[in-house]
Amino acid sequence: MTQDELSRLTASEAASAIRSGNTSSCELVSALLARIRQRDGEILSWAQLDEDHALDQARQADEQLASGSGTGPLHGVPVAIKDIIETAAYPTENGSPLYSGNVTGRDAACVAALKSAGAIILGKTVTTELALLTPSRTRNPLDTSRSPGGSSAGSAAAVADFMVPAALGSQTAGSVLRPASYCGVYGFKPTFGLISRAGVLMQSHTLDTLGLLARSIDDLALLTDCMSAQDPHDPVSYQRSQPRLGEFSASVPPLPPRFAFVKTPAWQAHADPAMQDAFAEFTGRLGERCEEIEIPELVDVLEWQRLVQLAENAAYYGPLQDQARTRLSAGLNARLDEGAKVPVRAYIDAIAAREAAYAAIKKVLADFTAVLTPAAPGPAPLLSEGITGSPIFNGLWTYLGMPCVSAPLMHVGAMPVGVQLVGLRREDGRLLRTARWLSQNLPGTMS
Amino acid sequence: MTQDELSRLTASEAASAIRSGNTSSCELVSALLARIRQRDGEILSWAQLDEDHALDQARQADEQLASGSGTGPLHGVPVAIKDIIETAAYPTENGSPLYSGNVTGRDAACVAALKSAGAIILGKTVTTELALLTPSRTRNPLDTSRSPGGSSAGSAAAVADFMVPAALGSQTAGSVLRPASYCGVYGFKPTFGLISRAGVLMQSHTLDTLGLLARSIDDLALLTDCMSAQDPHDPVSYQRSQPRLGEFSASVPPLPPRFAFVKTPAWQAHADPAMQDAFAEFTGRLGERCEEIEIPELVDVLEWQRLVQLAENAAYYGPLQDQARTRLSAGLNARLDEGAKVPVRAYIDAIAAREAAYAAIKKVLADFTAVLTPAAPGPAPLLSEGITGSPIFNGLWTYLGMPCVSAPLMHVGAMPVGVQLVGLRREDGRLLRTARWLSQNLPGTMS
Repeated sequence: MTQDELSRLTASEAASAIRSGNTSSCELVSALLARIRQRDGEILSWAQLDEDHALDQARQADEQLASGSGTGPLHGVPVAIKDIIETAAYPTENGSPLYSGNVTGRDAACVAALKSAGAIILGKTVTTELALLTPSRTRNPLDTSRSPGGSSAGSAAAVADFMVPAALGSQTAGSVLRPASYCGVYGFKPTFGLISRAGVLMQSHTLDTLGLLARSIDDLALLTDCMSAQDPHDPVSYQRSQPRLGEFSASVPPLPPRFAFVKTPAWQAHADPAMQDAFAEFTGRLGERCEEIEIPELVDVLEWQRLVQLAENAAYYGPLQDQARTRLSAGLNARLDEGAKVPVRAYIDAIAAREAAYAAIKKVLADFTAVLTPAAPGPAPLLSEGITGSPIFNGLWTYLGMPCVSAPLMHVGAMPVGVQLVGLRREDGRLLRTARWLSQNLPGTMS
Repeated sequence: MTQDELSRLTASEAASAIRSGNTSSCELVSALLARIRQRDGEILSWAQLDEDHALDQARQADEQLASGSGTGPLHGVPVAIKDIIETAAYPTENGSPLYSGNVTGRDAACVAALKSAGAIILGKTVTTELALLTPSRTRNPLDTSRSPGGSSAGSAAAVADFMVPAALGSQTAGSVLRPASYCGVYGFKPTFGLISRAGVLMQSHTLDTLGLLARSIDDLALLTDCMSAQDPHDPVSYQRSQPRLGEFSASVPPLPPRFAFVKTPAWQAHADPAMQDAFAEFTGRLGERCEEIEIPELVDVLEWQRLVQLAENAAYYGPLQDQARTRLSAGLNARLDEGAKVPVRAYIDAIAAREAAYAAIKKVLADFTAVLTPAAPGPAPLLSEGITGSPIFNGLWTYLGMPCVSAPLMHVGAMPVGVQLVGLRREDGRLLRTARWLSQNLPGTMS
């Protein structure tokens, strides 16, 4: 295969090509490293990358395969890790000079799980400052005058630019779905608790959720299957009882899906008019399969997510601010100051309201297969705006712990906008199956 | 059986006597109502009690038994319900004039479960104001110049005075264990989440735990077995996978237990010297089976429990205070005002620290069967002191979600003091088995 063919393989395709001897891990990793050398001077998506270390792992994977010893489902396949997730081989710098050279010597639970499945840890991808709103240096590979979004900026950009087939991201409001939307790749935030957060920078124990950026639904399922296991080190993690996502998401739906188009309370004030048109065209193509519904409960949910994140950010990052205020950005300092002032009653009310809100929303959605809503208010903002875009269409689902996929099925001008599908908690397999149905029946814009 | 014999039956004994025809539910309920008429003018443990309704239920139970239809494990056995737990038949007044005549028409999940098991809901027992610290009118039946403790005041007093074999209570700091200790009965606070709290007044979603007051360990196991089931209406409830508590707690321990005597950080400042002597005598009788250990982590736990309860009380009761401040006691108003001022960062830190603290404590306890510590700082306080006693020996275990039993195995002067046993989460069966071992091998002071 040519370098270009190799770098365009998805993780699932790469795993199968390596297994069948159509390529080797070394060949694949070399092709990706070449691509990175060509492109990343402009895109700036990698925070840490050691070519020798990557090739060493690939060589070992190839030797292991040649020796006939057992291999995992990701054998020899390179993945990228957002730089707030601990890796034994690389520092974890959390997008902040406060963590410069921060070597913990440990793999996060999710990284250890990927390695157990045979994955090569290619390197660490750039995150915004402490996975919040201050923009990173990374550029959008589809238009380098634009932002890739945040906070999983490097993960989305590297996957979109064919430097790696898949990358770990994390989402507290919209940090997986929004960059996926802006960069034209698939993003997946599974049900809260499906992937252990042990070894990952914590900014909000109520909201932080690990997720994935990839170029196919198969890859979302495959990598999540490798990482989902109950972990005593993350009290919200749970034992999944349903079938593996890979099989489930590839099965034929018993009925064609029915979609609930939910504008959410952010629509009026935030949705870009051109995106509204694109979305109307998109849902129009679904005809009777899509019905617009209102969920009044979401007005409060939007505010609760905001309060919870603000207050928990202040609690988790406050100690850093207390010690080194001048080394945090002005925007982050202002945010943490605001968070520390959230009245404790308002915070607890917001926490306590979550389950009842979810129960009410679950009832409203009983007749639908998934919610359909934009993954972002519009296309990626220009770098000159100095923002990473708004997570306003994502945060409410994160708060509710519901699984979300962004599928690259719309365009506004030359730029992609994701269609966000939202499912019920613990129905990740059904959600991925539905996203697959949508991608196959309304094929979109994946380049 | 005589009225006295009937009123002294435990719930397990009563269930078996009814099943075998040695008595009837009507006979038992009549005996208890007679006892209540004789005694409750002085003890004041009942908030709501309708003799006709009680006898109606008993009559139905007897008819059902006579007709040969299926019966549950508590068939015909009367139980009492703390008056913060909803019952369809009685108002739920929460110890506050704000809820006077508050008829919800629903049974709480735990009440419905008891009724499914065949229990007779005898009536509602007095609680302190909103299950907090302001004393109730109830007197300690062992010495009517003393407090029965709080907040499950009526539940403990009614059980201790043989007006009912068992009663539901609830604990946020020490509201089951402390009254059990003061009134000389068994108290049980199971693992956080074992019994659904749906339909129960919420004062702290992080801490509120339903529990039991009874006169035997069999009863603690029997009633808990009837009520423990996962309930979608209480997100912290979980599906128990271990064997039923009844069987498990009656099994022979594979090894004789080893106890960790933990003074907790409250010892120095709070433990009554006479109680210290009694406890030293008690642990002395255990010889090598008991080892004193220090758990430094508990210093912080004590403060975290306090902060979490204060802040959550303010969040859950704040709306009442906003509407009707003058109808709350001065003490409660002061508490809620204090709670509303807890800095949100401190509250979140206290919440976030819980799992790591539990993990550390679990490690320390690896070589022990249970913690042994007093259930209260001393014997019941005098009513003239105007307090319900301190939960200082209980709150830290409540915060950690660990199951606790108070066993009436010590005396200070003429008054009982409970020995508190604490087990690991979800090891309720082992804890009850250990409490049984202790009660049998160091028989105490149950009258």
